[in-house]
Amino acid sequence: MKKLLISIFMLLPLLCHAEDLQSPDGNLKLTFSLTTNGQPAYQLTYKDKPVVATSTLGLQLVGGNDLMSGFIQTDCRRTSFDETWQPVWGEESEIRNHYNEMAVTLNQRATDRTMILRFRLYDDGLGFRYEFPQQKKLVYFVVKEEKTQFAMPADNKAWWIPGDYDTQEYSYTESKLSEIRTLMPGVVKAHAGNSSSTTFSDGGVQTALQMKTPDGLYVNIHEAALVDYSCMHLNYIKETNTFESWLTPDAQGNKGHLQTPCQSPWRTVMVTDDARKTLASRLILNLNEPCKLEDTSWIKPVKYIGVWWDMITGAGSWHYTNDFPSVKLDLTDYVHATPNGSHRANNDTVRRYIDFAAANGFDQVLVEGWNIGWEDWANNSKDKVFDFVTPYPDFDVDALNNYAHSKGVRLMMHHETSSSVRNYERHIDKAYKFMVDHGYNSVKSGYVGNIIPRGEYHYGQWMVDHYLYCVKKAAEYHIMVNAHEAVRPTGLCRTYPNLIGNESAKGTEYEAFSGNNPDHTTILPFTRLQGGPMDYTPGILETQIYTRVKGARFVNSTLARQLALYVTMYSPLQMAADVPNSYEHYADAFQFIKDVAVDWQKSLYLEAEPGDYITIARKEKGGDRWFIGCTVDEVGHQSTLKLDFLDKGRKYTATFYADAPGAHYEKNPKAYTITKKTVTAKSIVQLSAAPGGGYAISLVPVE
Amino acid sequence: MKKLLISIFMLLPLLCHAEDLQSPDGNLKLTFSLTTNGQPAYQLTYKDKPVVATSTLGLQLVGGNDLMSGFIQTDCRRTSFDETWQPVWGEESEIRNHYNEMAVTLNQRATDRTMILRFRLYDDGLGFRYEFPQQKKLVYFVVKEEKTQFAMPADNKAWWIPGDYDTQEYSYTESKLSEIRTLMPGVVKAHAGNSSSTTFSDGGVQTALQMKTPDGLYVNIHEAALVDYSCMHLNYIKETNTFESWLTPDAQGNKGHLQTPCQSPWRTVMVTDDARKTLASRLILNLNEPCKLEDTSWIKPVKYIGVWWDMITGAGSWHYTNDFPSVKLDLTDYVHATPNGSHRANNDTVRRYIDFAAANGFDQVLVEGWNIGWEDWANNSKDKVFDFVTPYPDFDVDALNNYAHSKGVRLMMHHETSSSVRNYERHIDKAYKFMVDHGYNSVKSGYVGNIIPRGEYHYGQWMVDHYLYCVKKAAEYHIMVNAHEAVRPTGLCRTYPNLIGNESAKGTEYEAFSGNNPDHTTILPFTRLQGGPMDYTPGILETQIYTRVKGARFVNSTLARQLALYVTMYSPLQMAADVPNSYEHYADAFQFIKDVAVDWQKSLYLEAEPGDYITIARKEKGGDRWFIGCTVDEVGHQSTLKLDFLDKGRKYTATFYADAPGAHYEKNPKAYTITKKTVTAKSIVQLSAAPGGGYAISLVPVE
Repeated sequence: MKKLLISIFMLLPLLCHAEDLQSPDGNLKLTFSLTTNGQPAYQLTYKDKPVVATSTLGLQLVGGNDLMSGFIQTDCRRTSFDETWQPVWGEESEIRNHYNEMAVTLNQRATDRTMILRFRLYDDGLGFRYEFPQQKKLVYFVVKEEKTQFAMPADNKAWWIPGDYDTQEYSYTESKLSEIRTLMPGVVKAHAGNSSSTTFSDGGVQTALQMKTPDGLYVNIHEAALVDYSCMHLNYIKETNTFESWLTPDAQGNKGHLQTPCQSPWRTVMVTDDARKTLASRLILNLNEPCKLEDTSWIKPVKYIGVWWDMITGAGSWHYTNDFPSVKLDLTDYVHATPNGSHRANNDTVRRYIDFAAANGFDQVLVEGWNIGWEDWANNSKDKVFDFVTPYPDFDVDALNNYAHSKGVRLMMHHETSSSVRNYERHIDKAYKFMVDHGYNSVKSGYVGNIIPRGEYHYGQWMVDHYLYCVKKAAEYHIMVNAHEAVRPTGLCRTYPNLIGNESAKGTEYEAFSGNNPDHTTILPFTRLQGGPMDYTPGILETQIYTRVKGARFVNSTLARQLALYVTMYSPLQMAADVPNSYEHYADAFQFIKDVAVDWQKSLYLEAEPGDYITIARKEKGGDRWFIGCTVDEVGHQSTLKLDFLDKGRKYTATFYADAPGAHYEKNPKAYTITKKTVTAKSIVQLSAAPGGGYAISLVPVE
Repeated sequence: MKKLLISIFMLLPLLCHAEDLQSPDGNLKLTFSLTTNGQPAYQLTYKDKPVVATSTLGLQLVGGNDLMSGFIQTDCRRTSFDETWQPVWGEESEIRNHYNEMAVTLNQRATDRTMILRFRLYDDGLGFRYEFPQQKKLVYFVVKEEKTQFAMPADNKAWWIPGDYDTQEYSYTESKLSEIRTLMPGVVKAHAGNSSSTTFSDGGVQTALQMKTPDGLYVNIHEAALVDYSCMHLNYIKETNTFESWLTPDAQGNKGHLQTPCQSPWRTVMVTDDARKTLASRLILNLNEPCKLEDTSWIKPVKYIGVWWDMITGAGSWHYTNDFPSVKLDLTDYVHATPNGSHRANNDTVRRYIDFAAANGFDQVLVEGWNIGWEDWANNSKDKVFDFVTPYPDFDVDALNNYAHSKGVRLMMHHETSSSVRNYERHIDKAYKFMVDHGYNSVKSGYVGNIIPRGEYHYGQWMVDHYLYCVKKAAEYHIMVNAHEAVRPTGLCRTYPNLIGNESAKGTEYEAFSGNNPDHTTILPFTRLQGGPMDYTPGILETQIYTRVKGARFVNSTLARQLALYVTMYSPLQMAADVPNSYEHYADAFQFIKDVAVDWQKSLYLEAEPGDYITIARKEKGGDRWFIGCTVDEVGHQSTLKLDFLDKGRKYTATFYADAPGAHYEKNPKAYTITKKTVTAKSIVQLSAAPGGGYAISLVPVE
């Protein structure tokens, strides 16, 4: 008993000093303090309810001499900020950035080193970061670990995926915090990703981490503006019910090489009393720097199709020939090689896709497997894997681009790097110039496999720098970037809006591999999408597919829900991922995909509960149409929607794409109904979403 | 005793098969064999005297399944080759490449993997390599260690430096093989390099390793054509008197990522019965591929001066300001920074050097410290350390280049990378284009500090690829490369003759740091220079210098010997490293530096013994002048030179730059005499080189 008391005593830092900060609406209160040994700490309350209990801050450095304790406060400055800014693209045309700020300057007396803790408190959450001003006693330093605590006052419910230095392609687990460590081994074991994976702790989880407290608050921990720093994971300490930051190491096990002046990314704690407000929050974007691109006129949202699903399901191949045990770009004679007959990026197929795109109003056609090297790429730690400029013999890059352009369509470039990052950077200027020369203006890039330089991880400081390097360089060429397997976004699309998409989560491709959980898309908007848009690639209408695994299987979604995802999974880049044949077969349902907008003036979050359902209404930018989408879990959901957001006194033709009675994601996914009726702002509609289903609605003003 | 017998038994492989190969002159004989367990082995004799005792071959792979044993011979092909080729620049205008070759194809039966051992036997040595043809059962593999043995039949004398993954900047130790492991700790401890260092074994030594057998043979182990493989060290096993290959690891400890078809570099064993023949050997060059550059007209030998020695000795600085604890290229305001007053790459100083170069017939002026970033560079693991295109405020790049060009002089570019290699590669195209745009055609690059990507070493496969990448890319821009701190050369300058120099050894700069051994330059031509030219930067005439270490010290060389080095240290790139003031002060001696050629029609090795003395006579290319240089150890040396290589019946004015009586590298280094006399092919001259001294002679035909 005595031992226990001592433990508790040691866990409660003695506070010797405190500074308070309130959110503009007064609901959130942040208290900064120094413990008796001079360690910075903070706590956060919402309407006086604890959200983050007293949690300490600091950094351990390689070589000792940590920035953990021995600090005194030498300054504290408060400011307020309120502005409204216009994103280049987004869920709404205007975003308010309104916060109260407190910057506490700390000096570690024994070393005369200065560190600033800057807190920004919004109505919907907290952002804080470490800042290291230029100073004589702190110039270069290497981070052993950032020790930022997030002490949870209760055993919250959480939707989590395992902490991993290389992938976020996991299904979410819903559990109490206290169950994380017990459940982790099984979750990791069940992971069947197609990418590299490096887990590190049974308590390791990734951000954005969505939680719900016993008293109904929605708490979300993430980070914003991840620049020149390594990605933060959270390590759950069961004994203290506390998360601690856990950075991604480099090849030598260090977690960050810093030089003053510099700062950490923002650590964020979003807090709302309604899950819909969490979806409506712009906390992460607001904590990022304003747009740094002077001219953004070339950045356009994109709706696209692609030569892709055929290969994902195993019907076609990215590679061109089976002649060789392996290929070398400078040695292999592709011209005289035997085509394997299944290569999909061929002239005929691509023309067919171009025709389809042009006929149905798509902006672009992604073509994967167009360039030499796909015979052996990931999993070989192959350095010189692709050159990004040499097409296969059956892909006539000039003719196909000319054909596409003649029809008002562009091809979308594909740069699979195979995670051979030096190789990519060596070719990047030539590759981007090649794009410009041939009329491409967007690129889907990929990072499958282990990182080269070997020993680095997808989410370390090295790679964080690389991803942003590509985005910045792409901007020089007026190229939009959609990077798959890159680090999960942290709102940098505000600063560099040519970053129009990322994957960084389990996307639709897994429906062909092992299937996504029916509730997957009711969680992603709370987690992965908090940092920026995801190229989820929805729109699989032929949900019964033949996969690489022999035999047929079903996508874990009803057909109607596939339509809804164009609204619920916000992205300025939306793919219609199925093959043209499927769309021709389900032409009536496909109409929604053709109609739906990809850029928005306004978004309303009508219903939301993580893991259960999400219903969102959005008004298109530059037009008066509204679109509604609903996605639900394996239970199904009944909606009663008031359409009072519509223009008063105006009539709209509503087209409902809904699950038919008896629809079910597994047993009867393709049962859908399409009905039309006229509605007004006074209308109230009742809708039913099947288990693993959803619905989509288009609302077009009657002229 | 029983145990000992078993040990000996196990060390002597049982041979079950043997193939012989002879050198064209029949003196060298190579025997290839397979041991009873199917491990490849070889031995080498010179006139039936053993040079390499039976030594096994093979590779250990990561993950097991080694390529060590279980082989059967499936083919053996013999060919002969004899050609004469013309190097773009070199010690002579024509080089004969004459060898007998044997390629033994081996199949490892249990795995059905095939490996070819290709042996080339020249009159002056052996080259052999592992070849891995494209095949189904051997596609990608990771080398754990290459296990190539070089079993020594006797306790040879050796001139060695410690094996090190990051530097060759060591003084040579002369010892018996059996003494290496005992001496190593002291040698490593005494190392006071200014670069990074990673030693790995008390038996580890570097190549080229020069040895002398008890019966007077000169044996040299090195490698040729190091491409896409990691640099080989040798690990001495005292018990068996054997060297084993020891490759440089990558950040994960692996020693090579290979994909078939591929091959190892050539492993070379040069054998002569006269040290002069060792210097005359072109074994390493001959084992490299012919020139791959179609147009080489832009490649010219270069004699240059530089804004350099002033900083090396501590009188001046590379950096511009002392205002900041550290700098960031995108943040630091250099324009308003306070100049520190010691920055040497300023307009006035550079103009002075340009004037001096023009007045004295130099081709180029190197300027170090011209670009922003030098305030804090190496030793900080700084990623974004230089941009290679932004000059300091006091260096007017346009005006200075225009001024130089108006005087028929070029500036030489300097790219210190600080070993931040990703950063360099990101900037390299822009940096090379900047050079072309401003009229530079050669670059001295540097790799001081630990490699970034962190965990990689200077001599690993990653960096080997980088150095060659730079050379190839430079060739696209018609730029000549002189890379310091890069991996030691292996004859690649034959294939890419724009690689006009390397450092990769202790150069003259160490005379200002800790001093080079007096015999240093009598060893380098046997070791470091076997792979290619060294930018040794001789010509320090003011041998009494004020260094960073307080107070004056002496260069460990007489003044006369500094002149000789232009002949004995072959390079198509020769610097006059001292400051103009020194040359003006010793104008009579400086005349030799002005006169001496930098490209040669013919070279004769008049006297040579490693560690004692080297005397070389060379005839300039495109002219009839001869130059002779002699460098000796701390003992001094008496030469009797027959000038019978001169044109018969022709008179020459000989100018002798010699140590004066009483001259001594330490006590009286600047005592020199200059005398002239007329000589013919019948002349025999007696010369005396002081301890740590030498002499230089120019021989100009009397018109």
